[in-house]
Amino acid sequence: MEATVKEKYMLRAIELSNISVEKGGGPFGAVVVCNGEIIAEAHNQVTLTNDPTAHAEVVAIRAAAQKLGTFDLSHCEVYTSCEPCPMCLGAMYWARIQCFYFGNTKLDADSIGFSDAFIYDELSKSFAERKMPAYPLMRDVAFEVFEKWKNKEDKTEY
Amino acid sequence: MEATVKEKYMLRAIELSNISVEKGGGPFGAVVVCNGEIIAEAHNQVTLTNDPTAHAEVVAIRAAAQKLGTFDLSHCEVYTSCEPCPMCLGAMYWARIQCFYFGNTKLDADSIGFSDAFIYDELSKSFAERKMPAYPLMRDVAFEVFEKWKNKEDKTEY
Repeated sequence: MEATVKEKYMLRAIELSNISVEKGGGPFGAVVVCNGEIIAEAHNQVTLTNDPTAHAEVVAIRAAAQKLGTFDLSHCEVYTSCEPCPMCLGAMYWARIQCFYFGNTKLDADSIGFSDAFIYDELSKSFAERKMPAYPLMRDVAFEVFEKWKNKEDKTEY
Repeated sequence: MEATVKEKYMLRAIELSNISVEKGGGPFGAVVVCNGEIIAEAHNQVTLTNDPTAHAEVVAIRAAAQKLGTFDLSHCEVYTSCEPCPMCLGAMYWARIQCFYFGNTKLDADSIGFSDAFIYDELSKSFAERKMPAYPLMRDVAFEVFEKWKNKEDKTEY
């Protein structure tokens, strides 16, 4: 049976995840689709470029935004070989991605040694319950800049 | 009263958030501290560089990792002018940041028009309850690459 259009996009994302493994990177790939065309694609590059933020989705979203010349990707879809981790899903929300398709799940990622499910769990907890300590400091000073932003008239909101 | 060392790091993060507003960027700044020294710093660059992932923390973490030549920042602390959003907190977990200090809260960010609290809320929901639709697709094919990774002997884990 012939692959559907969506399956073709996903097959490319999976192919990228495989290319990554061949190169020695993490087994993740993603493509960004806009108006029926793949406009950006990437595989994981964390260990290959020493960049902890270089997940396939983040790299592909950055490339798509550069290509379109805007941080607003609301007409784009993401196809990713694995359910996005909180960092990548956060990036998708900030980029206003329309929707996404995923192959493996966060539990699959966990089963091969990645922390996706753990990080989802951490984010849902209070500061006090998390493994990573967090301390409030100088909110009064920091908030002055927020007020300056709020009162600025010529700002670009996003 | 003289500022403590931690306050000095935070004051630099806040200063960066102010520089960002002056330049027309979002009101956020962050520094990465390693062995008592600021090794990387950044302000928000989303609208300035058309990069939806260019939050202060992400940019600073990427710069710190490049400087140290490793994706493992477990000896580093982050000082950020605002509580990290899920994308940035996710990046901190992947980078194994030791702990972080924050000025404004996610509710403060919400009060001046940023979506931080909304995205935290979304991430805690099931696929079906979220505003951004997500569809599983071809997990069986995607999982073959996970198995290939799992069985690979010379891989760099992270």
